[in-house]
Amino acid sequence: MKTFYTADHHLHHSGMELSFGRIVETFEKPVRAEIVQRRVNEVGLGPVIEPPSYERAAIERIHTPDYLDFLETVFAEWRAAGRDGEVWPYSWRHRSMPMIDAPPSGLDARLSYYSFDMAGSITETTWQAAKRAADTALAGADAVLAGDRAAFSLCRPPGHHAGRDFFGGYCYLNNAAIAAQHFLDNGHARVAIFDIDYHHGNGTQEIFYDRDDVLLASLHGDPDFEFPFHLGYARERGAGKGEGFNLNYPLPANTAWPEWQTAFEDAHEKIRTYTPTALVISLGVDTFKDDPISKFMLETEHFSTIGRRIADFDLPTLFVMEGGYAVDALGVNAVNVLQGFEGG
Amino acid sequence: MKTFYTADHHLHHSGMELSFGRIVETFEKPVRAEIVQRRVNEVGLGPVIEPPSYERAAIERIHTPDYLDFLETVFAEWRAAGRDGEVWPYSWRHRSMPMIDAPPSGLDARLSYYSFDMAGSITETTWQAAKRAADTALAGADAVLAGDRAAFSLCRPPGHHAGRDFFGGYCYLNNAAIAAQHFLDNGHARVAIFDIDYHHGNGTQEIFYDRDDVLLASLHGDPDFEFPFHLGYARERGAGKGEGFNLNYPLPANTAWPEWQTAFEDAHEKIRTYTPTALVISLGVDTFKDDPISKFMLETEHFSTIGRRIADFDLPTLFVMEGGYAVDALGVNAVNVLQGFEGG
Repeated sequence: MKTFYTADHHLHHSGMELSFGRIVETFEKPVRAEIVQRRVNEVGLGPVIEPPSYERAAIERIHTPDYLDFLETVFAEWRAAGRDGEVWPYSWRHRSMPMIDAPPSGLDARLSYYSFDMAGSITETTWQAAKRAADTALAGADAVLAGDRAAFSLCRPPGHHAGRDFFGGYCYLNNAAIAAQHFLDNGHARVAIFDIDYHHGNGTQEIFYDRDDVLLASLHGDPDFEFPFHLGYARERGAGKGEGFNLNYPLPANTAWPEWQTAFEDAHEKIRTYTPTALVISLGVDTFKDDPISKFMLETEHFSTIGRRIADFDLPTLFVMEGGYAVDALGVNAVNVLQGFEGG
Repeated sequence: MKTFYTADHHLHHSGMELSFGRIVETFEKPVRAEIVQRRVNEVGLGPVIEPPSYERAAIERIHTPDYLDFLETVFAEWRAAGRDGEVWPYSWRHRSMPMIDAPPSGLDARLSYYSFDMAGSITETTWQAAKRAADTALAGADAVLAGDRAAFSLCRPPGHHAGRDFFGGYCYLNNAAIAAQHFLDNGHARVAIFDIDYHHGNGTQEIFYDRDDVLLASLHGDPDFEFPFHLGYARERGAGKGEGFNLNYPLPANTAWPEWQTAFEDAHEKIRTYTPTALVISLGVDTFKDDPISKFMLETEHFSTIGRRIADFDLPTLFVMEGGYAVDALGVNAVNVLQGFEGG
């Protein structure tokens, strides 16, 4: 299969993050995508293609224009305010605080409005990198729309924590959601997003929660203990005509392959029943036992099995890279899914 | 007037905070209280008295038992989880995330649940310091209940951003709210809290929002641009029988004395109309022109005028220390309010 990749992902690199009380080098760093790309070449998965640049319109199908403007301009505004370093929010809306109808005016107030955590900053070129990651997703979707059975969008920064108008969890634009919408906008009737990243795809859930043309199934660490904490419970099943089209599989810490596989197979069956015409895989491999920020126990060979079972859907399939932070094993684990899909 | 003060405030000192994108020494540091205490002695305001230790029951009148347990035990839990450093949350509930009925189980999930910002950590002895700050507020209230016209509770850490079950904005227990409730529980019918700190007292508002036995009037930087951002708008006037008993005066950046005084006098009149039987002043002096994290333009002499006008209420009055970060001027500005009150 074709891999879509651009070195432009280097344009985003937050210098630090707050991890369990310590300021550390961010886990979501450029070497992640490089390692996966190297592995793609090593196993000869197929050509690695630079995505073209898409119009912003395809992204505006998912994200609000005010949010995109914010992402594009906030760094310059930060500098104009006399601040150095990277753009960081520092305070967020507590459950005791009412909803605000529209984005506030102040710089820090807008940062608070458009975010929910301390995982990543906005650097001078974060917008460009995020835009190129969305391009990477769109190019993969276009390859599938053009007839490829599958494609791999090696996106970085990742996307599934980003919602209609917020960033967080290392994510700025929701690459998987943008790709799913692109399928719908180009003839597909129903798209399933299968999110197998360790973390709940809260952004993807928020985006499609009231819709029945996208089914989201997500396997993840139970929000009762795991980031993003406040979303991802099994009781969240969609709203309005989206009722029943949001499937969460929260799993306990130390979940190993047998239990993970049981949930995976249940979701697999429900996705089949939905009869999607296209499939988007939010491909995180932070379910791996040695992942430094995650608590599942999958092993390298399981990723091949996952790929094989995804192939069994027999659907046009786009793989979109999400998380995975055990850099030594990241390339092998991610590409194992793709090779498994191709029968390897 | 008597000042209540304990050196136990040293038991809380976060090592750092994230301020406009930079990791810096926290602005809310022990020297703040020392400087005010020194100034109290310098001008001979009156005796400085160590507060006794109160039962937790007086604090449970405001804060939930689960939150108090959390504050008391979370540091040990953090250590038991193998983590070093101070206890920090790192992700919060976004407006796109639904309310959760009860505190979650996981350590980081609970940190997220019980907080809303990156202003302060929980150290090994934060609970003790916060408890002693509440003791300091209660001792001041008891002096007033015993017949003193006024008292000064030199609390640190401050309190007005802390709600029923959350910390934030350097605050862990809401000292002013605990004191106001103590007045009510000891014979007062109606208490007014006049919050003249630069920041909106979102915790105090949350605590008393649906009650008519406490009137809150708060002058502060407009949340449209200033922390805590999501609360403090003029349209928030209370709920249920509390309707009309929450008065917010959001003011623009660069507000100087004439405009501040106009809002102050309007609030002054409304407080008088409420006919409270006791008054609690949330005394922040971060409205000072040289405050490093605030944007108002008050000058040192204005704090004397404020004190004189507070005396004009002719009410039993408790001053509770909140913010103020221009350490060189902090002692003079805070004590100017108290001397102004006493006719100086």
